Amino acid sequence: MRTLACSKCGSLLEVDYANPTPFSNTIPLPLHQPLAAMTLGEGNTPTIRIPAVGGMAGLERLFMKLESSNPTGSFKDRGTAIMMSAAVEQGVTEIVEDSSGNAGASVAAYAARAGIKAHVFAPTSAPKPKLDQIAVYGAQLHTIEGPRDLSTSAAMRFVQEHDLVYASHSRSPFFVEGVKQFAHEVMEQMADHLPDHLVIPVGNGLLLMGAYKGFEELVMRGKLPRIPKFHAVQTKAVMPLVAAFNKQPWSKDQASPTLAGGIAVTDPPHIHRLVSILRETDGQAVAVRDEEILYSQRLLAEQQGIFAEPTSATALAGLQILVSDGLIDRTDTILVPITGSGLKDVPPSRRPNQT
Amino acid sequence: MRTLACSKCGSLLEVDYANPTPFSNTIPLPLHQPLAAMTLGEGNTPTIRIPAVGGMAGLERLFMKLESSNPTGSFKDRGTAIMMSAAVEQGVTEIVEDSSGNAGASVAAYAARAGIKAHVFAPTSAPKPKLDQIAVYGAQLHTIEGPRDLSTSAAMRFVQEHDLVYASHSRSPFFVEGVKQFAHEVMEQMADHLPDHLVIPVGNGLLLMGAYKGFEELVMRGKLPRIPKFHAVQTKAVMPLVAAFNKQPWSKDQASPTLAGGIAVTDPPHIHRLVSILRETDGQAVAVRDEEILYSQRLLAEQQGIFAEPTSATALAGLQILVSDGLIDRTDTILVPITGSGLKDVPPSRRPNQT
Repeated sequence: MRTLACSKCGSLLEVDYANPTPFSNTIPLPLHQPLAAMTLGEGNTPTIRIPAVGGMAGLERLFMKLESSNPTGSFKDRGTAIMMSAAVEQGVTEIVEDSSGNAGASVAAYAARAGIKAHVFAPTSAPKPKLDQIAVYGAQLHTIEGPRDLSTSAAMRFVQEHDLVYASHSRSPFFVEGVKQFAHEVMEQMADHLPDHLVIPVGNGLLLMGAYKGFEELVMRGKLPRIPKFHAVQTKAVMPLVAAFNKQPWSKDQASPTLAGGIAVTDPPHIHRLVSILRETDGQAVAVRDEEILYSQRLLAEQQGIFAEPTSATALAGLQILVSDGLIDRTDTILVPITGSGLKDVPPSRRPNQT
Repeated sequence: MRTLACSKCGSLLEVDYANPTPFSNTIPLPLHQPLAAMTLGEGNTPTIRIPAVGGMAGLERLFMKLESSNPTGSFKDRGTAIMMSAAVEQGVTEIVEDSSGNAGASVAAYAARAGIKAHVFAPTSAPKPKLDQIAVYGAQLHTIEGPRDLSTSAAMRFVQEHDLVYASHSRSPFFVEGVKQFAHEVMEQMADHLPDHLVIPVGNGLLLMGAYKGFEELVMRGKLPRIPKFHAVQTKAVMPLVAAFNKQPWSKDQASPTLAGGIAVTDPPHIHRLVSILRETDGQAVAVRDEEILYSQRLLAEQQGIFAEPTSATALAGLQILVSDGLIDRTDTILVPITGSGLKDVPPSRRPNQT
């Protein structure tokens, strides 16, 4: 847990398995004990079919996986469960994390469950329900003025000053291992017709990386014939991956405020890995505007009964572009994860239809 | 859907099955078609073990079923999915509901999914996240000043005035049918050691009734040897069932405000049925104070990483009384449902531990 990067070259680490069990049904995990004590019931989220409706551009086989049903309301719980279980196995008693909100709430919850003291650094501008949620679990919340990356640097300084463990969800190799199970569930839930495309909102890109690694392992074990195409969606306000994928320049000076705060990551640590996954699977990277995000969020709620946070609705907005541009066929099977619950980030413009 | 009570005696209706399939694995449902179009992925909620900790009175086998993981954040989605599927089968296009918030949000979501226009009546004093959530799904929100029962009478008047269908979760026989699946999941998730006790917060008592009916059907089919003891927990502020169970007088004039707004039902329509379930299973009915509810909510969040709404934390407060009074043994297997997410009702007294 104490080491998040190579001491020689500075690269981030990845988990590898010395004794893989190639024909096991389960995806390998970097733990010595089962995680009974640390689980909060994460994963096994429902996958539901979205009937063709006008605003959805007449797609025939669109499915959504409701990661918002995870215990703290976002996909982050998958990674946190494994990261915090590893922390317990290694005797860690106090950790530091930084987050735009969802990962912080997730780490705070699992830290409470594990009896570990947590310090969570988050932007003062993060949605109030996320900040409240972090504090409710008893974590020490440190709010930091300014853009998201200042919370990261403040957390890193705090780690140094107090000689603590930096349980960074975006840097820990254990976190991605926890997300792999997403692929296993897709295989089981969509067994009769596996998705051709996954369309995923990307900030740090941990869901994309974890799902890809899971699919890769399932293909290696002969459980699946192929890996779906992975498509990344970002906000035009913060689009380092879209720029890198298209070989265009982008710097964090170009970043602007966005409703999709959960993916407003100006400097994703795994950006090269993300580009290579998109290329390997023949996927795309597209960016959308805040108005498109809000429209998609509203469409999801009012036509499908799914209340996604703006960050999550970004994927649907991106899907519309991929379909319009002919990069996804209307008859293809498409899976979109709803990465986080709308209850955690009610946009200020949504006022009740009240009488 | 249009008839919720007997035209002769005024009693509420219950679903019965003319052609039961006694050895079927699945619980019978009052639908002609599968509910594919109307599902939002409700049910299949996780059941997790709660390790013995100081504040939990040293219970050895305490489990919690996280109903907060349902699509709109409460157990209500189980009943709503079936109630709204029945509405669709019967060609209903516009409905009226009244609720303290959770059922209203659930009905609003499934109405959106079904393409049905929904009017939801709720108290002005309901938690803001619940009211916002109802409106986000595109339902028409009618907020009513005063206690919860005035929302019911306003909804009933609106039904009369506009000749609409009253899709009342507390009166519809279809709603309870949807909740039965809870029992089936408990049977599967706790197969190696079935619960001796269920401890449930009760307002209208629909989770208690639905779970009981599910267990009853499973016992009748020979799938289970016995029905657990059902215990009801109410708030001292609104305790008609506790009073009726103990043969004490109680009238709604005695009701006072409470943090457990989701169970502040002064006149539960099925109260006699609820009393008889408690007696048949040898269960109890206990009432708790708001301070005990807040303490239990905090214990759940800070020690177990579970963020329950105050209404849900009521069950844990009641459990402590049942154990202290020797009505539940510390070695018994106990199941407590976490009926709704804390994200929907952040109590004003919980302010962040912020630096």
